[in-house]
Amino acid sequence: MSHPIDKALRERAARVIPGGMYGHQAVGALPNGYPQFFSRAEGPWLWDTDGNRLLDLMCAYGPQLFGYGNAKIDRAYVDQMAAGDAMTGPSPLIVELAEKIVSMIGHADWAMFCKNGSDATTMALMTARSHTGRNGVVRARGAYHGSQPWANPRPRGISPGDQANQHFCNYNDVASLETAVAAAGPDLAAIFAAPYRHDVFVDQTQPDAVYAKRARELADETGALLVVDDVRAGFRMARDCSWSVVGVEPDLSCWGKAIANGHPISALVGSDKARGAAEKIYATGSYWFAAAAMAASLTTLELIHSTDYLERIVALGERLRTGLDKRAQRHGFRLRQTGPAQMPLILFDDDQDMRLGYHWCSRMMAHGVYVHPWHNMFMSAAMTDVNVDFALEAAGESFRELEQAAPTLGPNERYPGPKRG
Amino acid sequence: MSHPIDKALRERAARVIPGGMYGHQAVGALPNGYPQFFSRAEGPWLWDTDGNRLLDLMCAYGPQLFGYGNAKIDRAYVDQMAAGDAMTGPSPLIVELAEKIVSMIGHADWAMFCKNGSDATTMALMTARSHTGRNGVVRARGAYHGSQPWANPRPRGISPGDQANQHFCNYNDVASLETAVAAAGPDLAAIFAAPYRHDVFVDQTQPDAVYAKRARELADETGALLVVDDVRAGFRMARDCSWSVVGVEPDLSCWGKAIANGHPISALVGSDKARGAAEKIYATGSYWFAAAAMAASLTTLELIHSTDYLERIVALGERLRTGLDKRAQRHGFRLRQTGPAQMPLILFDDDQDMRLGYHWCSRMMAHGVYVHPWHNMFMSAAMTDVNVDFALEAAGESFRELEQAAPTLGPNERYPGPKRG
Repeated sequence: MSHPIDKALRERAARVIPGGMYGHQAVGALPNGYPQFFSRAEGPWLWDTDGNRLLDLMCAYGPQLFGYGNAKIDRAYVDQMAAGDAMTGPSPLIVELAEKIVSMIGHADWAMFCKNGSDATTMALMTARSHTGRNGVVRARGAYHGSQPWANPRPRGISPGDQANQHFCNYNDVASLETAVAAAGPDLAAIFAAPYRHDVFVDQTQPDAVYAKRARELADETGALLVVDDVRAGFRMARDCSWSVVGVEPDLSCWGKAIANGHPISALVGSDKARGAAEKIYATGSYWFAAAAMAASLTTLELIHSTDYLERIVALGERLRTGLDKRAQRHGFRLRQTGPAQMPLILFDDDQDMRLGYHWCSRMMAHGVYVHPWHNMFMSAAMTDVNVDFALEAAGESFRELEQAAPTLGPNERYPGPKRG
Repeated sequence: MSHPIDKALRERAARVIPGGMYGHQAVGALPNGYPQFFSRAEGPWLWDTDGNRLLDLMCAYGPQLFGYGNAKIDRAYVDQMAAGDAMTGPSPLIVELAEKIVSMIGHADWAMFCKNGSDATTMALMTARSHTGRNGVVRARGAYHGSQPWANPRPRGISPGDQANQHFCNYNDVASLETAVAAAGPDLAAIFAAPYRHDVFVDQTQPDAVYAKRARELADETGALLVVDDVRAGFRMARDCSWSVVGVEPDLSCWGKAIANGHPISALVGSDKARGAAEKIYATGSYWFAAAAMAASLTTLELIHSTDYLERIVALGERLRTGLDKRAQRHGFRLRQTGPAQMPLILFDDDQDMRLGYHWCSRMMAHGVYVHPWHNMFMSAAMTDVNVDFALEAAGESFRELEQAAPTLGPNERYPGPKRG
């Protein structure tokens, strides 16, 4: 797999984009041989700029739930764009979409729409502070809630005030949750929770029902609001808020990515308890009321509501997981496959600087499969058993090649370490 | 002009959207008779859900520079969407778009793309803090730099830390700028500036070259970065950064709205001095690398580069301004028309609670023209002299009706006051 066009683009990019690329789609911390740029996408496939076809297990880092270029969803976008998209006021679709979300999400009595997942998490924080008149936030160490200054995972450009009043616990650790809530004391405004532990670099863990219920109780006891950040996992765990699987309803939940199959829209969803506080915050954006992404989201939600997409992506994920384990063992590797099968993370045992994982990913890429060494992946409903078997065949070859290369692999210079993310 | 469908939609919205609507497109603080929802848009026209056609002088609050549904721009969006939009990596268009911006904006050596204007202003703040290792910000009282917590114009849901280290000056007032910079002292990271004073509710003022040059000097003396927030005015003042009209180049500028004619994209643009700092911040979003809006932006920028759109919107704005003055005088009203003619704000003299302005706007709406009583408006290149004359005819009628109604107008209950933003 050769990348002369990608290389030339990177040289141009280095001149006009800081660092050549930025954010979660920069490939600087990914294995050798990963293209930076893509020309085309269709169903479960991506094509890089050099014409190599890749089975994409990242699904655009989540947004692709029904496959690239889903005809129904894109048609809804294009038709609404022709009628009116970003106008001087919203279209009726904002009402229809809020009604649809309220009908699908158990705790939802209302919705507000925005563009980034970060917009939704920031509005959740503001709503909780508006509701309580307090400032404190409890959240789990290592959990990602977006790149706005209050949640940004890196220190550069962040001022102390941005992240003041935050208290950290360990996910699924009730005692540490109680300690953090106690530390916030009478100032607690919000408890933020990821739907499950989907931190980068580490094994994923499902939510513990005892932990989730204790978070609900602590919010109720202190008068704080409970927020589930479903931006990444939303509608891949359930046809409802992801914490419905452990029987806990938050006051607020944050949505994005999959809700419009890649078209730009996100949402803050809340219960009646939080409505008055949400009314009082000022939150807006130039394109938040644009109708085309709302049309795409309505079509996506209807597919979520009426198809077996969820059972299919779970089955695809399980087929992948079982097949990978079998093939890894055959070549003497033990994998740690964690997270919901439909949002898999694949780590290698005894792989401190991820040199095994990186080399295996490089080989997978060479065989036409885009896998990520340290971020959870995503199954889409556009994938089939044939696609999974294609990935498994590539995996078998890649394990075989890794077995040969492993004894001579040097330190992994690209591994950014578990602190980054 | 009747709005039964709009009324029914508002009743549904009140159940599923906090306050029935939120943000800058909520019409609660606008005059009687303003529809909340729109069904269709084309060229300079909007249609509300009850089928009333309106000449739209708001241009979606700025994004519409070449008219709703511009065929070339929308075709670029749709064609790129069919190839690939939000993928697992960016398309080559991100490089082309950065190159195009660097070629068009004098101070630009690089660009980063995002979704909201607020994303760009927040990244500017982070870049300045990253560059200096300091926290302080100087900005003008009443200037809007987005709705993120650090810049949010209202107190609800904002914690003290969000807006710490900020020092306020008065726009165009060199002494107050110097005082604010002195107050920030050795902690100054950034001086933010609007391209001109386009605050809501008050007369607009062009940038004073002495003020702009002093801001540049103070940034250089202190090592802080100078940021021009061109989200609202960008490419309506110049085919370059708006402060090019006063001969001052900032280190960073923020763009959005008009750069893709309503398709969702914004940008932080910087000079080489700020490149290293921009490389080190972590900034990203789910849809920031999506290619379709970049295709639309490339086409929009080419129209900006190669057509006389700017001269045309200036001429249209001047025709409107002259015509309005003449018609207002005929009925005994004195207008304060401020700002660049192509971004007009129309206030009435001796109109403390804006009862005259609100009534006149209501009448304009009844005659099929959407004007705003306290936010600057926007001319678009899709407008013609015929459109302006249509607005002027409506204005003549509306002044006449206002003259009759003025003596009996009661207090304006909807006027939110100049403190609201």
